[in-house]
Amino acid sequence: MAEEGRGQEKEDAASPLSVERVFEKERVPKWREQLTFRAFAVSFVLGAMFSVIVMKLNLTTGIIPSLNVAAGLLGFFFIKTWTKLLDKSGLLKQPFTRQENTVIQTCVVACSGIAFSGGFGSYLFGMSNIVALQTPDVNDANNTKEPSLTWMIGFLFVVSFVGLFSVVPLRKIMVIDYKLTYPSGTATAYLINGFHTPQGAKLAKKQVSVLGRFFSFSFLWGFFQWFYTGGDSCGFSNFPTFGLKAYDNRFYFDFSSTYVGAGMICPYIVNISLLLGAILSWGIMWPMIDKKSGDWYSASLPKSSLHGLNGYKIFISIALILGDGLYNFVSVMIRTAMAFRQQMKKKDAIIPVAGVAAENGTNFDEERRNQHFMKDSIPFLYAVGGYLAIVVIATPVLPKIFPQLKWYYVLVAYIIAPVLAFCNAYGCGLTDWSLASTYGKLAIFIIGAWAGAHNGGVLAGLAACGVMMSIVSTASDLMQDFKTGYLTLASPRSMFVSQVIGTAMGCVIAPSVFWLFYKAFNVGSPDSEYKAPYAAIYRNIALLGVQGFGSLPKHCFELCCGFFAAAIVINLLKNVILPKKVAGYVPIPMAMAIPFYIGGYFAIDMCVGSLILYAWERVNKAKAEAFGPAVASGLICGDGIWTLPASVLSLAKVSPPICMKFLSRSVNLQVDKLLGG
Amino acid sequence: MAEEGRGQEKEDAASPLSVERVFEKERVPKWREQLTFRAFAVSFVLGAMFSVIVMKLNLTTGIIPSLNVAAGLLGFFFIKTWTKLLDKSGLLKQPFTRQENTVIQTCVVACSGIAFSGGFGSYLFGMSNIVALQTPDVNDANNTKEPSLTWMIGFLFVVSFVGLFSVVPLRKIMVIDYKLTYPSGTATAYLINGFHTPQGAKLAKKQVSVLGRFFSFSFLWGFFQWFYTGGDSCGFSNFPTFGLKAYDNRFYFDFSSTYVGAGMICPYIVNISLLLGAILSWGIMWPMIDKKSGDWYSASLPKSSLHGLNGYKIFISIALILGDGLYNFVSVMIRTAMAFRQQMKKKDAIIPVAGVAAENGTNFDEERRNQHFMKDSIPFLYAVGGYLAIVVIATPVLPKIFPQLKWYYVLVAYIIAPVLAFCNAYGCGLTDWSLASTYGKLAIFIIGAWAGAHNGGVLAGLAACGVMMSIVSTASDLMQDFKTGYLTLASPRSMFVSQVIGTAMGCVIAPSVFWLFYKAFNVGSPDSEYKAPYAAIYRNIALLGVQGFGSLPKHCFELCCGFFAAAIVINLLKNVILPKKVAGYVPIPMAMAIPFYIGGYFAIDMCVGSLILYAWERVNKAKAEAFGPAVASGLICGDGIWTLPASVLSLAKVSPPICMKFLSRSVNLQVDKLLGG
Repeated sequence: MAEEGRGQEKEDAASPLSVERVFEKERVPKWREQLTFRAFAVSFVLGAMFSVIVMKLNLTTGIIPSLNVAAGLLGFFFIKTWTKLLDKSGLLKQPFTRQENTVIQTCVVACSGIAFSGGFGSYLFGMSNIVALQTPDVNDANNTKEPSLTWMIGFLFVVSFVGLFSVVPLRKIMVIDYKLTYPSGTATAYLINGFHTPQGAKLAKKQVSVLGRFFSFSFLWGFFQWFYTGGDSCGFSNFPTFGLKAYDNRFYFDFSSTYVGAGMICPYIVNISLLLGAILSWGIMWPMIDKKSGDWYSASLPKSSLHGLNGYKIFISIALILGDGLYNFVSVMIRTAMAFRQQMKKKDAIIPVAGVAAENGTNFDEERRNQHFMKDSIPFLYAVGGYLAIVVIATPVLPKIFPQLKWYYVLVAYIIAPVLAFCNAYGCGLTDWSLASTYGKLAIFIIGAWAGAHNGGVLAGLAACGVMMSIVSTASDLMQDFKTGYLTLASPRSMFVSQVIGTAMGCVIAPSVFWLFYKAFNVGSPDSEYKAPYAAIYRNIALLGVQGFGSLPKHCFELCCGFFAAAIVINLLKNVILPKKVAGYVPIPMAMAIPFYIGGYFAIDMCVGSLILYAWERVNKAKAEAFGPAVASGLICGDGIWTLPASVLSLAKVSPPICMKFLSRSVNLQVDKLLGG
Repeated sequence: MAEEGRGQEKEDAASPLSVERVFEKERVPKWREQLTFRAFAVSFVLGAMFSVIVMKLNLTTGIIPSLNVAAGLLGFFFIKTWTKLLDKSGLLKQPFTRQENTVIQTCVVACSGIAFSGGFGSYLFGMSNIVALQTPDVNDANNTKEPSLTWMIGFLFVVSFVGLFSVVPLRKIMVIDYKLTYPSGTATAYLINGFHTPQGAKLAKKQVSVLGRFFSFSFLWGFFQWFYTGGDSCGFSNFPTFGLKAYDNRFYFDFSSTYVGAGMICPYIVNISLLLGAILSWGIMWPMIDKKSGDWYSASLPKSSLHGLNGYKIFISIALILGDGLYNFVSVMIRTAMAFRQQMKKKDAIIPVAGVAAENGTNFDEERRNQHFMKDSIPFLYAVGGYLAIVVIATPVLPKIFPQLKWYYVLVAYIIAPVLAFCNAYGCGLTDWSLASTYGKLAIFIIGAWAGAHNGGVLAGLAACGVMMSIVSTASDLMQDFKTGYLTLASPRSMFVSQVIGTAMGCVIAPSVFWLFYKAFNVGSPDSEYKAPYAAIYRNIALLGVQGFGSLPKHCFELCCGFFAAAIVINLLKNVILPKKVAGYVPIPMAMAIPFYIGGYFAIDMCVGSLILYAWERVNKAKAEAFGPAVASGLICGDGIWTLPASVLSLAKVSPPICMKFLSRSVNLQVDKLLGG
């Protein structure tokens, strides 16, 4: 496949500048040694801190930044300071390794991830009475459920570990076979490797210095941008670079260094697919469908209604993603089965590590990484066993918590979930976007429609959303971590343990933090600072869901089917029919689908990243290959770390002083009149 | 002197990359050959075109961009196309040289300069009845004069040539002895040299390609910025980079590539002096004086009133400039006299060219340029003779045109003028800013005060402003051209002839164009599109002037005296008292004075330019020295050329579609309310 070809080309070219050569003399600790007490102590502190930040943002703006990078960095500084102090006093027993650093990062992400996927700002709180009273109908007792610490913790424990087990068997496919980029995970790994670079490595030092420079630039740029965001749709992230009309259709360069960096890491074909998808959807289809307003759907609907244009956006993008995901899922299944049969035939052949390595012509870095990544493997049966065990527990337990959620709904959800988890982990690996909430909305709709309003469909839908979101969101988050682990030689087994511990922490910490907010503030009231804006939105989706599939706007279902089929056809063209040379230029449906819902702005950012890398490669290929990933990682990490002080400022109610606003000339005249008078 | 030291250092270092080596094999045409008929034909067309543009801007917004670069570029393309056509048909007699190119540029600048310095949007039109009726008092016949084609042409012919003659003797001092940078002139020369680079010169080609790249960048950047300027104080040039409070005090980075480029050409000490001046005035003094509002001056005055804060700004900055200018003028006088005496003693010594070259340790470029610049010299006595001849003609003629302007006012103006011309040419060479209109305002005030309201002081003041502005503005414009000529080996004699012809053209073209506008549109009426906003402002200054010096705000005169003395003391410190090493770090008063009136934003731009160059020199000194000037020239020229399409868009009434506005958080709330409701 084209994107794999490119991915490999990049890594091959880096061989003279091998990262692992630099670390060659450092002993990689055994997986048990990577799991230290101090690591989990730090993880607990950071996990709690990030949970507070995420929860606060959940309940105020509803927009949650990714905290992977911050976790890696803060973990480093905590332990580094600690080990330095111990080292000076001569008490240090175990040196601080990059593997331990990755373990911390993984644990913190797993823990704080639950503050988001637990739905305290969305589906879970959407069940409460206070939100139900804000929506027009169906707010009987059968369709509401008040938050309480006990059932929330129970629910999370039942739901949150499923994702973990479904991720484990996908690990090798995503990271080694598909060589997906996972830009954030890669950037975090670069950062961690950079911190732990042994002294004396010249090129590595240079790379670290480039990383540091772009890290600072990106951080300062984030800081600078902040000052101009004192209001809605203010600041650089709303810069109508291509005019106001293009901006209204979400075509603009939003100056996000994260996505420019991600674009430098992703293969060209991914970025081009994103752009094509944006043009196809926001450039052509949505404006056309918008013109049918009043014919295909009622013109008086609110913008967010799934009965209107928004419905097309969500369902068509999901259809495309599902088509691509299903194709890849089935193709992986078939290939695995075939490999299994072959292995059965000649029992002596060692398939996993050497086999992959030989056929792809790997270099030193890749070989070493594959080796470590496959060494402490977690048996497939163990993963399946874990998954089944949870299903067996959850199927009767969940209906106990939500009587409206019948046991067969739960079973169906758990049967579909692995496919969706695969889709999300795959898409996230390609483009860095996790669409967990989109899958969650799908679950609300399907289960809600199935149950119907009178059987507590609203509550059933919201609960199903929780099940789905937990699995899907965990799948992408933890796969990012596995990529980081892969690139830092952390043992998958230690990562897994760390994720289990982190998830367990999160299942207790997140509801407790929410409980604090809930008791201390007037959460959910429209006049309060803690409006929890998405809770009402999720409940509204559920209200639509219970009206069934017939409530979808006209031709939406047909369009979905068309796009689902198109995704499969494109994949067949790409992987089976067309010769390899041409296939490289066929876009990836999964990547095309993501801007369908989100808009084209981040695709433009990523293409700018591609363009920069391309120009750089034209001018000086060797330098671009040596320092490109460092620049990209610096851009991603700097912006990532800025989210931390930005969140703190937001918690401390420090608002930016200036609003950089973009007005059309005629509106500006009105404003000038207002300000002059 | 420090700034000379640096200037020289830069040129010395460039010696392995000599520009003139590249051109060595090209014959420099004799001065008569540089003056071709086709050059003046093109100059006439371009001069007329630019006059229309300048006039339109004069009468609408009042803000006039510098057209030097555009003149050089368009001149090149006109003649190049012409010669290429002739070359193909075998009729070409004389190849197109860079000297001829410079001659065209000089002629066009001299011609279109009069559309500005003729005061059609300011002092000249400020005499008319329609403007007089808009101002409160003193609009009797004695203090108004209606425009008419005949007296305007006569007035311009008498007034406009004086500047020319006063510039000629300063030529060598400014360009060769003081080695002033004249950023725009230098950039234009780079552009012209780039166009005419002979084939086969490798480094020169690279430099031209760098120039081209930054030229395009700067042009596109100007174009991009334009889209966001759909209203007052919109766009990047009003970006409150350091917050709104700093913006109110004119401290911000305004993203002007012209001034960033100029900063890269100017010596560090100039840029630092500018910044210091900005901090001293807008950072410390003006806010302090502003607090005395109501005590030192009436608090109810309009912002532009010279009785209030604005008075301090104008008069203190002029005092500082005059102090520095006078010091330098006297010092040049003394040195010239001493050199003259020495020459009398030993008659055989060749002072002018070889003398300067030997004592400064010049390189190839400088030697060759000095040689050509001094070869076709214009005798000092000739310049003095010309000046005196014009004084003799003007002293009786001007009072004929304006009976209120007594002959002794004219005489006094002509006696002071050379010093002011010196000051302006010197300041412009240091910083690229011409303060002609500031000197004009000084003349209005002094002569107006001297004459008094009842003796037609208003009209006398405005007329005196014309005399002063013409001289002072010509001095800086033409000195920029001389710098261009110096760097392109154009003969000063051919430049002088070109300037005379250009000025003569301008004296006819500019009033004719004004007359067209005046007859066709309702010029000067507040409801018209052609409001001529500065005409009323100039008349208001004259009205204040006739109230005499007593009308200056409190302590203003004392402060002026203090700053005047300070300028002289700093110069003495810098040039006489302190050792050379320390003296290099003493700021230049002239450079400090310019932001006093204008504000700090362009000083910040220029310091950014300095910073870029400094960082570049730290990373790669050889590259920075080879390509720094090309980058700077590209930045200046690209922005300069963009003014042309921008002016055309403005003439065609095409307004930019978007306003990028900067609002404080609280104001933004109001605006959002307005837009939401």
